[in-house]
Amino acid sequence: MRYTQHDFVKGLSDGSLPKRSFKKYLIQDYIFLTHFTRAWALAVVKSETIDEMKLAASTVNALINYEMQLHIDTCKKIGISEEELFETEEAFENLSYTRFVMDSGFSGDFVDLMAALSPCIFGYGEIGKNLSKLSVPNNPYRNWIDAYSGDEYQNLCNSLGQLIESSTLKRIGPVPGENPRWRTLCKRFHVATKLEINFWTMGLRAVNENQNF
Amino acid sequence: MRYTQHDFVKGLSDGSLPKRSFKKYLIQDYIFLTHFTRAWALAVVKSETIDEMKLAASTVNALINYEMQLHIDTCKKIGISEEELFETEEAFENLSYTRFVMDSGFSGDFVDLMAALSPCIFGYGEIGKNLSKLSVPNNPYRNWIDAYSGDEYQNLCNSLGQLIESSTLKRIGPVPGENPRWRTLCKRFHVATKLEINFWTMGLRAVNENQNF
Amino acid sequence: MRYTQHDFVKGLSDGSLPKRSFKKYLIQDYIFLTHFTRAWALAVVKSETIDEMKLAASTVNALINYEMQLHIDTCKKIGISEEELFETEEAFENLSYTRFVMDSGFSGDFVDLMAALSPCIFGYGEIGKNLSKLSVPNNPYRNWIDAYSGDEYQNLCNSLGQLIESSTLKRIGPVPGENPRWRTLCKRFHVATKLEINFWTMGLRAVNENQNF
Amino acid sequence: MRYTQHDFVKGLSDGSLPKRSFKKYLIQDYIFLTHFTRAWALAVVKSETIDEMKLAASTVNALINYEMQLHIDTCKKIGISEEELFETEEAFENLSYTRFVMDSGFSGDFVDLMAALSPCIFGYGEIGKNLSKLSVPNNPYRNWIDAYSGDEYQNLCNSLGQLIESSTLKRIGPVPGENPRWRTLCKRFHVATKLEINFWTMGLRAVNENQNF
Repeated sequence: MRYTQHDFVKGLSDGSLPKRSFKKYLIQDYIFLTHFTRAWALAVVKSETIDEMKLAASTVNALINYEMQLHIDTCKKIGISEEELFETEEAFENLSYTRFVMDSGFSGDFVDLMAALSPCIFGYGEIGKNLSKLSVPNNPYRNWIDAYSGDEYQNLCNSLGQLIESSTLKRIGPVPGENPRWRTLCKRFHVATKLEINFWTMGLRAVNENQNF
Repeated sequence: MRYTQHDFVKGLSDGSLPKRSFKKYLIQDYIFLTHFTRAWALAVVKSETIDEMKLAASTVNALINYEMQLHIDTCKKIGISEEELFETEEAFENLSYTRFVMDSGFSGDFVDLMAALSPCIFGYGEIGKNLSKLSVPNNPYRNWIDAYSGDEYQNLCNSLGQLIESSTLKRIGPVPGENPRWRTLCKRFHVATKLEINFWTMGLRAVNENQNF
Repeated sequence: MRYTQHDFVKGLSDGSLPKRSFKKYLIQDYIFLTHFTRAWALAVVKSETIDEMKLAASTVNALINYEMQLHIDTCKKIGISEEELFETEEAFENLSYTRFVMDSGFSGDFVDLMAALSPCIFGYGEIGKNLSKLSVPNNPYRNWIDAYSGDEYQNLCNSLGQLIESSTLKRIGPVPGENPRWRTLCKRFHVATKLEINFWTMGLRAVNENQNF
Repeated sequence: MRYTQHDFVKGLSDGSLPKRSFKKYLIQDYIFLTHFTRAWALAVVKSETIDEMKLAASTVNALINYEMQLHIDTCKKIGISEEELFETEEAFENLSYTRFVMDSGFSGDFVDLMAALSPCIFGYGEIGKNLSKLSVPNNPYRNWIDAYSGDEYQNLCNSLGQLIESSTLKRIGPVPGENPRWRTLCKRFHVATKLEINFWTMGLRAVNENQNF
């Protein structure tokens, strides 16, 4: 709730989000995307079946070779040059979130990594669906909402959801709650959700600041 | 020399390589391909620029989502089913080579990983070029030779060569031989070359054996 | 300057630091210590000489098997039970700092890890020395100051300083500033320094809060 | 059986093992020890409780800061200088075993690493116990047998056995055989056992060779 109904998200929904907040979010999201790609590459390293490898590899490739370009184009449209993106200092909320995800992967196995990646994937999927129903006419954030409510992203959510289900089944069995790892995995999920909330808050905070860190 | 002019390679060149050796090689190469994909995914994790990430990510995707299918098709043509591939026990020579590459990446940085990956990439490129000149008519290994001498693979070699050059320049400077890491990197390269030679020898050894390990 | 002369440090120096701030710092430092141990263990994994391994291994052992017990004892004295330590939720500033250090090690090599570990080691060494001169009589934080200004910690700083120097020499040569990696390494050092500053700020922030995250 | 009753082991038991085989084994074991230390350091990185960390850290420290010196002394006694140890080229059987263990840890979690480390720990424990009963009078390998049958090593086996049990319980539950990861873990254990057997065979092979690789 604190995540999918965050003030930042409400601001996207009714178009009231300050431009400055959205701009900060977009710039930091560019850096986030590079680390998210690294995290999915780590999922390839930690895969135990060909199917896990294939889907994780497709995600790596889609993120860095397609999404990234879309992101650069979106930024250009609202006046953020590629140079500005490259030179941006990473915000504290970005660094903490992305490195937590990486370390979850490095210290655990495939499903530890998935637990830390899940809030982002499915949170955006849910927000996309919600906002496509709620969005006001002439919403300046229409493009963003369309991207995450659109078939392409929603289908990706479904595929990754199936990957996470099958890889979890393979490692912790059909009744996750009875497996001794369940508590640890839930904790990773909850911390990642909090860090995702912080990412929205970082956007809002931009209204009152001059520097990024 | 012991690598690119190995008896296995000569056997490919003049068509004298026993079917059984080629079959063993192909089956093990299937397993090799999964670990090679993991190694390139680790390169994405260890990239420090967008360009490094992009090319490493494309390689990951190409290996697992395209090459792998080609490989499965090639195997099917000579009578190795996908089931047989899946169930094959990993040969000792395969395991040692692939895990050495992975550990080079885990223990070092991007260029340590590249040093261990290079012998395979460029060795196959050189062998492909050599064999396309030497190959006899009606060579049963024509398809294999065409694949590695063809434009697609040769272009990949060029791209990866540029990646390795630029990433090395960025980390150890314009005169590699003067950098204190040079000795360590050369050692990784030489060990990987020996392990690649062992992989050919594994193929030859198949003529006299019943088991894989 | 913003690090070694932080208000938290001044508060330790003249004894004016609120108890609540010190308590929060100590509790979080317990969690920090576990991740710091993990980071030094990663240094063992990434060592390239026996001497690097030996010193990193001693540090791992000293941190978790001795420092940790001292820390638990210190906490007990000011009324924090071991149970409280175990159950504490990790603060945001703790998580970001420790995971950044781990990821520096995972994505780079031994010296990338050292660059991220340095601000903590030497910062505490410098603060210890400064505060032992400045500390007022009857300072309630005398024990803390004595620990970090004492011979044992100062000798550790010297040993680790020599390790960092020799490992850097071995990897980037005698004139670090001329090595192309220098900029990246300095960036890791600067980010880690900022994250160390945030850790002090976390302590101060405790005065006005009820929750940890 | 093929492991604990290997011809190399029988040769230790009745003193018939050629000196050259034992020498080769000792020299390679020096290199093995460095990687075994790295593997236990990785166990510290992947620990999820303080108790796991403490025991893994003690093992790291004991291996590199004590065992290593004992090993160097043993080698000196039979005429292998420290310089010879340092300059030895790593045998193929050594490289494959140690890198397989490292990759098990990197790609999986704590228990994946333990599965690959177990055959060495407990195999030596069992061999030590067996040989102390079987050893002939005036056996030139008496010291080696005493080291592994002695209380110190046998107690270490017990401690690590308890660590492996408790860490497995924590991650895959009280009935390991019913957990979906069991098959993967058993496979890691079996491969590591084969690689341990290869290590003995490497020793025997030394009788007929001039080079290490």
